[in-house]
Amino acid sequence: MALVVQKYGGSSLADADGIKRVAQRIAATRKAGHEVVVVVSAMGDTTDELRDLAKQVSPLPPGRELDMLLTAGERISMALVAMAIANLGFEARSFTGSQAGVITDSAHGKARIIHITPGRISSALADGAIPVVAGFQGVSQDSKDITTLGRGASDTTAVALAAALGAQSCEIFTDVDGVFTADPRIVPAARRIPRISYEEMLEMAACGAKVLHLRCVAYAKFYRMPIHVRSSFSSKEGTWVFEASEAEEGEVDQPIITGVAHDRSEASITVAGIPDKVGVAATMFRAVANAGINIDMIVQSTSSVTGRADIAFTLPRQDGQAAIGALHAIQDAIGFESLVFDDRIGKISLIGAGMRSHPGVSADFFGALADSGINIRMISTSEIRISAVVDAADLDEAVSATHRAFGLEDGQSEAVVYGGTGR
Amino acid sequence: MALVVQKYGGSSLADADGIKRVAQRIAATRKAGHEVVVVVSAMGDTTDELRDLAKQVSPLPPGRELDMLLTAGERISMALVAMAIANLGFEARSFTGSQAGVITDSAHGKARIIHITPGRISSALADGAIPVVAGFQGVSQDSKDITTLGRGASDTTAVALAAALGAQSCEIFTDVDGVFTADPRIVPAARRIPRISYEEMLEMAACGAKVLHLRCVAYAKFYRMPIHVRSSFSSKEGTWVFEASEAEEGEVDQPIITGVAHDRSEASITVAGIPDKVGVAATMFRAVANAGINIDMIVQSTSSVTGRADIAFTLPRQDGQAAIGALHAIQDAIGFESLVFDDRIGKISLIGAGMRSHPGVSADFFGALADSGINIRMISTSEIRISAVVDAADLDEAVSATHRAFGLEDGQSEAVVYGGTGR
Repeated sequence: MALVVQKYGGSSLADADGIKRVAQRIAATRKAGHEVVVVVSAMGDTTDELRDLAKQVSPLPPGRELDMLLTAGERISMALVAMAIANLGFEARSFTGSQAGVITDSAHGKARIIHITPGRISSALADGAIPVVAGFQGVSQDSKDITTLGRGASDTTAVALAAALGAQSCEIFTDVDGVFTADPRIVPAARRIPRISYEEMLEMAACGAKVLHLRCVAYAKFYRMPIHVRSSFSSKEGTWVFEASEAEEGEVDQPIITGVAHDRSEASITVAGIPDKVGVAATMFRAVANAGINIDMIVQSTSSVTGRADIAFTLPRQDGQAAIGALHAIQDAIGFESLVFDDRIGKISLIGAGMRSHPGVSADFFGALADSGINIRMISTSEIRISAVVDAADLDEAVSATHRAFGLEDGQSEAVVYGGTGR
Repeated sequence: MALVVQKYGGSSLADADGIKRVAQRIAATRKAGHEVVVVVSAMGDTTDELRDLAKQVSPLPPGRELDMLLTAGERISMALVAMAIANLGFEARSFTGSQAGVITDSAHGKARIIHITPGRISSALADGAIPVVAGFQGVSQDSKDITTLGRGASDTTAVALAAALGAQSCEIFTDVDGVFTADPRIVPAARRIPRISYEEMLEMAACGAKVLHLRCVAYAKFYRMPIHVRSSFSSKEGTWVFEASEAEEGEVDQPIITGVAHDRSEASITVAGIPDKVGVAATMFRAVANAGINIDMIVQSTSSVTGRADIAFTLPRQDGQAAIGALHAIQDAIGFESLVFDDRIGKISLIGAGMRSHPGVSADFFGALADSGINIRMISTSEIRISAVVDAADLDEAVSATHRAFGLEDGQSEAVVYGGTGR
């Protein structure tokens, strides 16, 4: 009897009917002979509604109290799911993050799980009950205060709990059928990816794919916990995120590109006319970092005529004003000429473990964009990813063209295979 | 610096504006030099809305899960109140019933407080913070599960916490100005009672006065904790519920009647034609008690002609069907002739500690009802109370006539004083 952790998101639990449907699926898993531990998010938009209430009461609510407030959302959904399961004849017991032994640090709103001591969950399982655990929340090791793990963190709770319990796998139920080769709203012919490695999924999540959160995938990779992302509205197989064996990574006929991700949440800042002095770039990025801003891509170009450099970088759009303020404050000290802020950019990323051994990918990528008349403004790469910044208006076309060029579409008979021996 | 526990009910916390108003009152109490511990109910109709959700998911939700669900209501309001206080420049910390050390038995939905270990509340006070505690909830001693104390139990939490902390008094903020000599919706001239003894308040609450719950008053009496019932919408003095000194109880010019309570929630059952055998009444009431029904008044009358008896009793209206079922089941064994169920009754009660030494009260009470043409169907008395069951249609007139007859009205120059020496 294998133990499975199942996580259900807010869209699957939007109303009483959704909750009853989820309960039936949980009961079916038990009837199929599995032990089940359930992790739930808050119903529908509950968390946002609670945030709005907080805003009405206080412009800057203390983090401890905001966490106390927001965790009410999962308390409601977990109790209702437990009731719905009980109504189908199975014993169910709901547990808060604290009761489930989710011990975190004290960083309210973005706490990190330190460890999980799931004694009460194990006892419930031993009693034959189905534990239903609140996602997104824990209790701080030091102050014993209630904490939240940040947006989308119910997935992280599920994976961490699965690891702590030694589960066989962690199923993440959501409102889409799995991870796709591109966003189907942009590329209707995008295909579901049946299997993807942790590394590729990390790059996908970091590059804007929203179906799984970065931290959840990082946990899964660390604990080697297989994740099955699937729809709560159907019984179809979804996407398995797993530890790729060396054999699999080396498969010669594996498609080079696993998927195309995109991200509209960034902006760029160009610092123009920077004097050629040692340490200037360091000073600049230190100022931005001190403002609490994480930057993404950096490109430097130097004019051979003036000897002055331009540095452009991308950052989360909502941090734009803060970054500009921080840079203006050091303008006199550094002596750069001007700042240009641009929030009309989009980032497209190709991800694929097969890229490691195939040098032709960049050229084909840039070629596909060029054929569509799309101008590339910045480029960055990792071992298994190539990203390009383009005009926001060109982003959809860039995703479609790239997806097509690498043979990822549903109708295409075969994906592009570099150096493949054929079958 | 005296410690005061303040309890705010759902109607005072109906929306963001209500919460901000409550926070201002709490801050004002602190500015006046008092230490404050706050106990809150859920906002407005939150608890009822959560109950409705539970009903949609399961016809008979497990008590443990229903308690888990319902306690989300106070979690929301306590966090919001703490935020609103913080926004006024005072440190506030919210605590669940469990965090506040409210230890109960395991009777979900109607748990009893076993003891309170308010270590975290005391620490918060020592740090200069204002603790905001969830009413209505606790944690069971045996299973460590979340429990609720039943309807209206936030008042009980407040009084028990005040006792555990050695507070000077417990202020219960509500949407009325205090305890009145009668329901002002029936008797517009009803007066606020400035001071009332625990015993009188217990009788008032038991006889239908809704402003304070019976168990809360019983706790206050046991711990001799003074309660101040007052409006959260004004700064007027309300009603003090306190331990009457013997001197006060013996005051000769004290009004005999403190107030008139009424209750529309009961029904009566008449068991007619009961054979005159030993033990029949015991068998009957055992059957009703085994169905979990608490009965209130009992009247027996025996016919000198037939030798058979009629027994009539009152009980909560919603238990009527269950009681009739239990009695029908023993009809053959007992041999009574018929059952009559009547839910068109009302109960009026006069309460007053002065009644103890003044035998004329009953006669005046029955006289007032007779003068208004109201027929009395059942009577019961305690040392400081007289209750009568009348037709439901006559109840309002009975309350008004009695209130007037005993001189309790606002415009009346003086209440009726039996054997008083005058002033």
